[in-house]
Amino acid sequence: MSARAGIVVTGTEVLTGRVTDRNGPWLADRLLELGVELAHITICGDRPDDITAQLRFLADQGVDLIITSGGLGPTADDMTVEMVAKFCGRELVLDTELEEKIFAILKRLRARFTNVDLDAVRAANRKQALVPAGSEILDPVGTAPGVVVPGKPTVVVLPGPPRELQPMWHTALQTAPVQEAIAGRTIYRQETVRMFGLPESGLAETLREAEQRIDGFDRLEITTCLRRGELEIVTRYEPDAADVYAELLAVLRERHARQIFSEDGSLIDDQVAALLAGRRIATAESCTGGLIAARLTDIPGSSAYVAGGAVVYANEAKSEVLEVDPALIEEHGAVSEPVAEAMAQGALRRFDADTAVATTGIAGPGGGTKEKPVGTVCFSVQLADGPCLTRTLLLPGNRSDVRERSTTVAMHLLRRALLGAKDPALLED
Amino acid sequence: MSARAGIVVTGTEVLTGRVTDRNGPWLADRLLELGVELAHITICGDRPDDITAQLRFLADQGVDLIITSGGLGPTADDMTVEMVAKFCGRELVLDTELEEKIFAILKRLRARFTNVDLDAVRAANRKQALVPAGSEILDPVGTAPGVVVPGKPTVVVLPGPPRELQPMWHTALQTAPVQEAIAGRTIYRQETVRMFGLPESGLAETLREAEQRIDGFDRLEITTCLRRGELEIVTRYEPDAADVYAELLAVLRERHARQIFSEDGSLIDDQVAALLAGRRIATAESCTGGLIAARLTDIPGSSAYVAGGAVVYANEAKSEVLEVDPALIEEHGAVSEPVAEAMAQGALRRFDADTAVATTGIAGPGGGTKEKPVGTVCFSVQLADGPCLTRTLLLPGNRSDVRERSTTVAMHLLRRALLGAKDPALLED
Repeated sequence: MSARAGIVVTGTEVLTGRVTDRNGPWLADRLLELGVELAHITICGDRPDDITAQLRFLADQGVDLIITSGGLGPTADDMTVEMVAKFCGRELVLDTELEEKIFAILKRLRARFTNVDLDAVRAANRKQALVPAGSEILDPVGTAPGVVVPGKPTVVVLPGPPRELQPMWHTALQTAPVQEAIAGRTIYRQETVRMFGLPESGLAETLREAEQRIDGFDRLEITTCLRRGELEIVTRYEPDAADVYAELLAVLRERHARQIFSEDGSLIDDQVAALLAGRRIATAESCTGGLIAARLTDIPGSSAYVAGGAVVYANEAKSEVLEVDPALIEEHGAVSEPVAEAMAQGALRRFDADTAVATTGIAGPGGGTKEKPVGTVCFSVQLADGPCLTRTLLLPGNRSDVRERSTTVAMHLLRRALLGAKDPALLED
Repeated sequence: MSARAGIVVTGTEVLTGRVTDRNGPWLADRLLELGVELAHITICGDRPDDITAQLRFLADQGVDLIITSGGLGPTADDMTVEMVAKFCGRELVLDTELEEKIFAILKRLRARFTNVDLDAVRAANRKQALVPAGSEILDPVGTAPGVVVPGKPTVVVLPGPPRELQPMWHTALQTAPVQEAIAGRTIYRQETVRMFGLPESGLAETLREAEQRIDGFDRLEITTCLRRGELEIVTRYEPDAADVYAELLAVLRERHARQIFSEDGSLIDDQVAALLAGRRIATAESCTGGLIAARLTDIPGSSAYVAGGAVVYANEAKSEVLEVDPALIEEHGAVSEPVAEAMAQGALRRFDADTAVATTGIAGPGGGTKEKPVGTVCFSVQLADGPCLTRTLLLPGNRSDVRERSTTVAMHLLRRALLGAKDPALLED
């Protein structure tokens, strides 16, 4: 049985969804790397009873380690340290050395403001120097110190701002109580396979077959997730089950060779970025409105291969900026394969590029017709020196879904065209 | 005492942070609107014991309503309905009518795939037609049905994909068991004020002052949140404290008239959309790489006023597509106010637009210099018939922060220029 942990995220702004919690996922990743089993993340507002109830719940679940985030500020609604002290049955004691440290930080921070009453500041922040007796103090990265309270479970109390929490977690990890709490951890391996173009039920079928064919299948902890049309299959196992995983991978390859695009967890965006090295790409977007360009340029260093792109919403912009013949739009409509191809060709010329991707479609909610309902999107990828792929798809969902899904489809078509330039067999449907 | 609720988010992909949960925050908002007190959000993986423990915990906390999200798919790791049935002490029964409904949906979805073994599909999805005896069925929006299980607490079981969960929640809300569970809710009013360009500490000071000046201040539940450079102030109060809120609003206006851009919670994107009615806008983006165009076109109906945009990453693209004089780039550098202005002017001409916004900057991680460090971004907004606003800012954070923050700054500059066209006093710094 591996060491188990729970995370308590406090803060009314997080509970009510006005702020997205980044600490739970980040800590989850760290625990996974360590081989500590994360059982629960719980989120509550700044209410004493709710915080206490969550600590009690996790202790009842037998976790070895609880990590809390948030609630360490100077204002009255910040009360995590006090609640943890009560929960652990320890007195709060004033650490005068810590108090001086915090005061020095605050003095420095406030130096640029005038009219600061330093005595008031000191009084307001004395609270932050109150720590549970016998706990280890984690020096502030911002103004709030954290603590490690030893016991079963050991409780690590960290501040809410991610840029403070993250370095302080690394400090906490070095302390004896935390090392002791996670001593029972198991080192797992984790592998990720990604597919595109397979419905989730198809994968479910394959996994049921694998379960029957593979000895020791239950030694694999498999989770699957459908996102933006991509299927992610994450498998965790102890190192001596590596051959079982190899068998699973063989089954997946056998059944879904064409749909698997990643066996090492790499993302489509990074794969496309790698394939674009030494090339020069331009985008020509109508319904995706800049999302493809934004995704390509999200990668650091993308300026080496992204020439630019055109967002051509209006028909005149399609003609003026990308030299799409107005007669072509007149004949086939703006949402058509000939127009998508002409947009891609125009982008190649206009940006002096060797790779282009174009989209034109109906994202909705308005604009759909019986022949071309909302969700109809035409894609064209053109390589100056190689294949041209043009497709029309009908994508589900609302405006935002259609735009996002179209962007993902475009990335996969790009990948296929770029790989197909080397191995034309990959271009067949 | 108001009706209380808890949310259970299931899914190993969410617990481990591979997928960001969007359902907890969305449901939190719906509960808030209803006047139902949200006590806890708990997140666990696809493990039977952990799901059961969380349901038990919430029931022990005395909540009237539990909402679960996720775990309704056809694969073996999806087990929420089974766990909820056990927890509520109800048998799972096969609903044959529901089974036919699901099968019909799947047949339609699979029609575009070849070689589908429909019997296998039917077998795989029978599981999804098993529901707790005596529960109310929520018809699938995707392929997974939800259920409402009456009791104390009443449990609403919803699928994980937000576009399925959201309409199904509205259906669940109409059912008698849910209405009964939330009968004790309190009706609150909630008002949102948004500001731009004020540090959080400045707002904190104003709120401390308001606390001393306003009688009954403690009847307002105020939460503040800083996001993408915008400050959001959400105030919740019972209807008879409306005059107290009016006093708070007066204080905010008195101190921060220039920073308040929304008193009704409206978002900058919607405000800019409204101001663009009857106009024709084009974008010229370098470091934001399409994000401004994507944000403008995210609004339904934006095709009425968005002509298009150019993403000009390469210097040659700036010159070729937007007619920026290469000598200007040579003289001032690509990241400079003259180049930003020339980009905006080029966009006006190229897209035959009357409104243009341009960005050029260094998003990092590479490319910074001592004079122009990472985070330096030049903005220019030009109206053909009115003011031109050009600014240079140094924005904090990593590549993605700088790009996102730049997009928000551009939206606020647009708003100011468009308002300034009517009232030039607004253009002063």
